[in-house]
Amino acid sequence: MKKRISILGSTGSIGCQTLEVVDMFSDKFEVVGLAAGSNLRRLAEQVHKYKPRQVSIGRAEDLQVFRSMVPEGILLTVGVEGMTEVAIQEDVDIVVTSVTGTLGLLPTVAAIKAGKDIALANKETLVAAGELVMSLVQENRVKILPVDSEHSAIFQCLNGENRLEVGKLILTASGGPFKNKTREELLAVGVEDALNHPNWSMGRKITVDSATMMNKGLEVIEARWLFNVDFDSIEVLIHPQSIVHSMVEFKDGSVIAQMGVPDMRIPIQYALSYPKRWANDFPKLNLLEVQELTFEKPRTEVFPSLILAFEAGRQGGTMPAVMNAANEVAVSLFLDGRIRFTDIPTIVEKVMANHDCKNNPGLAEILETDCWAREEAVRMA
Amino acid sequence: MKKRISILGSTGSIGCQTLEVVDMFSDKFEVVGLAAGSNLRRLAEQVHKYKPRQVSIGRAEDLQVFRSMVPEGILLTVGVEGMTEVAIQEDVDIVVTSVTGTLGLLPTVAAIKAGKDIALANKETLVAAGELVMSLVQENRVKILPVDSEHSAIFQCLNGENRLEVGKLILTASGGPFKNKTREELLAVGVEDALNHPNWSMGRKITVDSATMMNKGLEVIEARWLFNVDFDSIEVLIHPQSIVHSMVEFKDGSVIAQMGVPDMRIPIQYALSYPKRWANDFPKLNLLEVQELTFEKPRTEVFPSLILAFEAGRQGGTMPAVMNAANEVAVSLFLDGRIRFTDIPTIVEKVMANHDCKNNPGLAEILETDCWAREEAVRMA
Repeated sequence: MKKRISILGSTGSIGCQTLEVVDMFSDKFEVVGLAAGSNLRRLAEQVHKYKPRQVSIGRAEDLQVFRSMVPEGILLTVGVEGMTEVAIQEDVDIVVTSVTGTLGLLPTVAAIKAGKDIALANKETLVAAGELVMSLVQENRVKILPVDSEHSAIFQCLNGENRLEVGKLILTASGGPFKNKTREELLAVGVEDALNHPNWSMGRKITVDSATMMNKGLEVIEARWLFNVDFDSIEVLIHPQSIVHSMVEFKDGSVIAQMGVPDMRIPIQYALSYPKRWANDFPKLNLLEVQELTFEKPRTEVFPSLILAFEAGRQGGTMPAVMNAANEVAVSLFLDGRIRFTDIPTIVEKVMANHDCKNNPGLAEILETDCWAREEAVRMA
Repeated sequence: MKKRISILGSTGSIGCQTLEVVDMFSDKFEVVGLAAGSNLRRLAEQVHKYKPRQVSIGRAEDLQVFRSMVPEGILLTVGVEGMTEVAIQEDVDIVVTSVTGTLGLLPTVAAIKAGKDIALANKETLVAAGELVMSLVQENRVKILPVDSEHSAIFQCLNGENRLEVGKLILTASGGPFKNKTREELLAVGVEDALNHPNWSMGRKITVDSATMMNKGLEVIEARWLFNVDFDSIEVLIHPQSIVHSMVEFKDGSVIAQMGVPDMRIPIQYALSYPKRWANDFPKLNLLEVQELTFEKPRTEVFPSLILAFEAGRQGGTMPAVMNAANEVAVSLFLDGRIRFTDIPTIVEKVMANHDCKNNPGLAEILETDCWAREEAVRMA
């Protein structure tokens, strides 16, 4: 039987690559739901090609024009509620949450409650609400299958292993386009510089997060929840070639690493094929071409976002949600040319300092805090 | 309950390191049998310390003097028969076969037939008699746990994976002390040069085999049997740092690698603790110190032994036993200063060329062929 999938954020980078995986294994998948924001043209193309039963778009004001772009008989919905409906349709087996931002939290939680497996590409779900989400995952006996190359790597390294025997997780980071820049040089970098990632082709928000290293910070918090380890057992190493996607050191001194070409389709496919591995035509790793793999210590004095993330993660409660929301706003202000690159962590730090952290927040409290942090970030800018 | 182990070849490099692992986990192991060759002093020390019930030495003429070196009440035996008795004692749970050479074949086969799990460090067992041994392993439902760092690595990379989804095995090789030498330069190398391995501290025979790359050839044949893959799915990469101990590429393009410091105690421990991993005090891998991992193509035009091994392995039947025996003699002649380093593969090649290969040989035929190849190798020298 075909695996029935819904993709939240289908027109983004991960969403489109998910559909490439579906194309390669068209006998194995049926796309039953798609949700996107404002890229109506691409979404309409996808609807024509994959014929999902239900489709959701970002804004109600686009509904009429979008209806004219797609075949009749498709159920159209709107906004977070619409996206949620796409996720929880009765016959969905797995939901790919490739939407960016806090926006992804509610539909993901609803999908978990509806018993759907999650191919998780939305970082905010676990960063903002890791404790709550993981307890829902347990309660509803669903699987969370990581799509991020780093978490997919760790997930694969843990195959057949006893998690109590893990010594530490080693997340690798490319270091981004500014890996070797000084703090002074960073003052002058522009938007185009930040979007010029050396190895990965990704969306704008995550590419800037890679440049500040906040992306790795978010991944550290995600890893804490996905793999149930404490922050002292998570290490970050700069690995400029992006070939070793991450590693696990076990208590006996063995290190298991997952490697591959930097191609998101491989971890996406694994999330969808798990526990199976399917032969594909994607380019294979050639270590003779790569020649050398190097590892460096992160320069946290130049990239303080990584420290902020560890701090927020250790504080827990509402603090990671605050950090994440403040960062989202700061990155957006930077992309709009309204603040400098180096202002991003400064704003995040200020908003965190102004936050009165609450423990064990519920979903409503997390979303309220998220709103507060966004407003506060704009004030701090 | 303690795991009861017998060690064949207890005074050699792997034997002594096995006992270091036993020392670190003395509450988990009981040494019930030891077998060694002519290093009576070290063996006697081990007998005093570990109090095995049964001990075997190499030669009958040493029996009287050895009896005076150890406490009374220990059952002493001699030769291959003695070693076999040490292996098949009724209460032995696992046999560490760390004896070098074809000598290890009969006791290992006997241990398998007696239902003992095998921590396999003797290469000749699978090189000379892989097909026969693996069918006995299946028949007797015992486990073969690889001790070699490369095979242990692959074994670990396959944890929790489906072996039908393996694309290829990638065995790493340090390249040995002569990695960058030309064919001309190799004409002049001496015994001390060959014994000067850059990364691993091992016995003399295996260290010379590392220098010729025959060691990797033997490992390729072992891997073929241990993991049931064909030779086209086994690749060798030079990796001078000896940190990535080997890798598995799966059909989906994911590569899983096992890494660690070059310390044989880690794979030895894993073979003895499997499927568990125990925390130990052995030095841990620090990738920041290693700095770079590099990979190169093996220079088979300078190190033809690797090609000979693939050839012998592909021909199968008695040919790998012939290759192995000829190599053992040639290495011994080189260590005695009677032939040049570059004569080693030449002798092996000549003996292989003179051999009339038989398919599906029994144990007796393998041992006869082994004898023939040894004599032939001396003639060719």
